[in-house]
Amino acid sequence: MSSRQRIVVVGGGVIGLSVAWRLAASHEVTLLDPTPAVGASWVAGGMLAPVTESWPGEEDLLDLGSASLESWPAFAEAVGVPLQTEGTIAAALDSADAAVLDMLADHLASRGREVRRLTGPELRAADPALGPSIRSGLIVPGDLAVDTRELLRRLVDLAREAGVAFDPRSAAAVRPGAVVLTDGATLGCDTAVIAAGAWSSALHSALEGLVRPVKGEILRLRVRPGVVPLRHTVRALVESRHVYLVPRPGGELVLGATQYEAGFDDEVIVGGVRDLLVDAERVLPGLAEYGLTECAAGLRAGSLDNLPLLGRLEPGVLVAAGHHRNGLLLAPITAEVVNALVAGEDPPASAAAADPARHARTKR
Amino acid sequence: MSSRQRIVVVGGGVIGLSVAWRLAASHEVTLLDPTPAVGASWVAGGMLAPVTESWPGEEDLLDLGSASLESWPAFAEAVGVPLQTEGTIAAALDSADAAVLDMLADHLASRGREVRRLTGPELRAADPALGPSIRSGLIVPGDLAVDTRELLRRLVDLAREAGVAFDPRSAAAVRPGAVVLTDGATLGCDTAVIAAGAWSSALHSALEGLVRPVKGEILRLRVRPGVVPLRHTVRALVESRHVYLVPRPGGELVLGATQYEAGFDDEVIVGGVRDLLVDAERVLPGLAEYGLTECAAGLRAGSLDNLPLLGRLEPGVLVAAGHHRNGLLLAPITAEVVNALVAGEDPPASAAAADPARHARTKR
Repeated sequence: MSSRQRIVVVGGGVIGLSVAWRLAASHEVTLLDPTPAVGASWVAGGMLAPVTESWPGEEDLLDLGSASLESWPAFAEAVGVPLQTEGTIAAALDSADAAVLDMLADHLASRGREVRRLTGPELRAADPALGPSIRSGLIVPGDLAVDTRELLRRLVDLAREAGVAFDPRSAAAVRPGAVVLTDGATLGCDTAVIAAGAWSSALHSALEGLVRPVKGEILRLRVRPGVVPLRHTVRALVESRHVYLVPRPGGELVLGATQYEAGFDDEVIVGGVRDLLVDAERVLPGLAEYGLTECAAGLRAGSLDNLPLLGRLEPGVLVAAGHHRNGLLLAPITAEVVNALVAGEDPPASAAAADPARHARTKR
Repeated sequence: MSSRQRIVVVGGGVIGLSVAWRLAASHEVTLLDPTPAVGASWVAGGMLAPVTESWPGEEDLLDLGSASLESWPAFAEAVGVPLQTEGTIAAALDSADAAVLDMLADHLASRGREVRRLTGPELRAADPALGPSIRSGLIVPGDLAVDTRELLRRLVDLAREAGVAFDPRSAAAVRPGAVVLTDGATLGCDTAVIAAGAWSSALHSALEGLVRPVKGEILRLRVRPGVVPLRHTVRALVESRHVYLVPRPGGELVLGATQYEAGFDDEVIVGGVRDLLVDAERVLPGLAEYGLTECAAGLRAGSLDNLPLLGRLEPGVLVAAGHHRNGLLLAPITAEVVNALVAGEDPPASAAAADPARHARTKR
């Protein structure tokens, strides 16, 4: 199986692009997507934050995310994008929010993770742009962030340079030995990789009901002269609503993200934008003076347990989907898993829990 | 002076386009604008509402606006755009807002204008989409509204068909007999018309200090299935802040508009968007479920007294600028005034107060 294969990767988001680029070193790769790099990845915030994203009961995801985070510095260097290494601040506004963060800190400590608890004044000393209504928080030094759009542009270029053929047609179904296109044609291959994010379920019967769209709105802002810029990525709980703020070196500030279980509706809604702006302003009082450059929505690929589906569905058919809020973070390890499976090798141990076979077992 | 002239109109917003189209029937007209139809007019809400816009002390503007409103049905028919004739509701949220509307109603009654005062419940009976926190309001039957973008597209087409030459260069100065361009060239003409909105002051020394940019943000929304649509144009006072909501037949809802005296800065700011959304939601509680399709900002041309500048600056140089919040409303009468002046005839009496000579008198 280590010989050169014909591989079709279905889907050109950050996962499909990373997989295709990696495989192109040893195989003949076609990437199938009418509009590569414009889906959920394009609107993502770019936090690489397995620790602040973690939650009791999702230890497998924390381990998988941590393993991928370790790969990120080398991945970013190979891609040629800088990483933001200032770390993440988790911030709590009201007492219920603070209780959640305390619970998270206890959980992380029990898993041996480094977190530092800070009072509101200590947080403001660490980042003077933060507002006085922040009650408490955590500083997580290891989390990273990346400019998603710069990354995607580079991945498209690198994949092209590595010989990946970009095919602008759409897939309708994936079966062993072929991808069936919506125009009725078929594209023969030795291995097909389903990396179509929220649209993956429809491509193979084994994925039915396992991946669903989760809409998220995200705003792009621009710091203006005279505003004290935010230095750290902040993930805040504002009266139990989540909001994150990702500042970029060039002055961009990304605000996200809402979550809706609303099918394939991907329209930006007034209520979502209002919540993001009002909640983020509690965290960053200077927000009103930022420029607003973009309101966008994307459809994440939600899975049943928030773990992605990384593995073999049947001979010649692999899946790399269901990454939900963690597509950017998990791109390096996903490419590694798919590359190992194509080569007939064992994938990294941390990815074992993400094998889609877990659901086949549940169904039986 | 009634012979065929070479005329250069500087500026291709709704004023410049209306003027150029009108003059092209009898003259050889060049319209000078690198980007016609994309300035303040393009982001305008399209309310044709001299009565709900009126204010004690601005009687000249009310008379001018009313005269132009009378021309609107014929103008709209000639252009080929429909008018919205449901009338405007003026709504007040808190008791101070209600007091302002009472004052306005008294003022309008004293000027012989038809207005009907309604309680909150009466307003909600008239338009069930309105929210329960509206305290009181007025219904003004005569005010109209128009789809600004449809209008602008039609005006560009009509002007072209009428023979107007669109020149994409920029004007630097206007003097008798010639328009000087930013590239140093000059464009000879018998008459030049300065219709460059907020950029007019720099074009002629007589306009120095008379026109300034007034930034306004405006949002475009889209009604979604299940939402009770707003039927009337609403101009609301929400804790002393102004917000207007203009529903269009196709399901678009335009929300406006902030006002900033901030020079030529035309960036959309978070604080403005937040205020518009939060205030408009008080008026229209279903707003959160609308789609948000566009956030934009434009620069209105503010004048010293809120009246536009319509008249002759010196022989061969006319001005049609400073329309502030009333460019759409005043387009027909502005075209009529300029056409009369070019023909050597008397402009309509209602436009006498808008003669720029009023400021020359003040200066002396």
